[in-house]
Amino acid sequence: MSKKGSKEERDLVKMLWDSNFAAMRAPASGGATKKPLPDVLAGNGKIYLAIEVKSTSRDKIYIDSQKINGLCEFSDIFGARPYIGIKFRYKKWLFLSPEDLEVTRNDNYRLDMDLAFKKGLELDELIGKDKQLKF
Amino acid sequence: MSKKGSKEERDLVKMLWDSNFAAMRAPASGGATKKPLPDVLAGNGKIYLAIEVKSTSRDKIYIDSQKINGLCEFSDIFGARPYIGIKFRYKKWLFLSPEDLEVTRNDNYRLDMDLAFKKGLELDELIGKDKQLKF
Repeated sequence: MSKKGSKEERDLVKMLWDSNFAAMRAPASGGATKKPLPDVLAGNGKIYLAIEVKSTSRDKIYIDSQKINGLCEFSDIFGARPYIGIKFRYKKWLFLSPEDLEVTRNDNYRLDMDLAFKKGLELDELIGKDKQLKF
Repeated sequence: MSKKGSKEERDLVKMLWDSNFAAMRAPASGGATKKPLPDVLAGNGKIYLAIEVKSTSRDKIYIDSQKINGLCEFSDIFGARPYIGIKFRYKKWLFLSPEDLEVTRNDNYRLDMDLAFKKGLELDELIGKDKQLKF
């Protein structure tokens, strides 16, 4: 019954709660509707996040344009910021906006480690904490 | 694997999408955390709703205080309005604020049909549509 990537989704949900967000995973089956759902939905009263979760042991991943379009559609209606949360193995979580992804020749998306580290936000940055203030 | 009440949750999620909200059910298993999750979470860019779904073929239901406290806690952190969505069989959905529930002698909550119809909002009212404008 468990979805691919659900370990990472659970980890991310825990991290978000630890950062004073309320966070919820999508149900394993789409269930009620054919509507696109993000993997994780979170809010802290100010910021609302809809996150598509990806993880890989390689140095790049491909994402269907359908997934990204669905993420953007949901986020737009719900009133959330759409992000791709990427966990490269042994690396920190990084969060990218859909517009930061690279488009492939067949109109899907590619995200490699260089791009992720160049454009991605760490969780603290995503949720607006000033990392400079940490000791 | 399906939760009690999931048919009603699915119906409600569909109604919310049809009313221009993006809506998502909670996963069947709490999963990631022991954190309290609402049955349904929805937003339309302006209003965010966390809904505990109840249905019954009787004329009243009892709700554990733990459920209501959890709903309020999640809503407070996430930034959503907490509601109990009640579906009495053959009746319309009605939505009540936690503070509108009746407290029982052992500190749980009771909601009967009289109270629901007196204090409850219909979906259109909940989402701020002016019913007067409908033809």
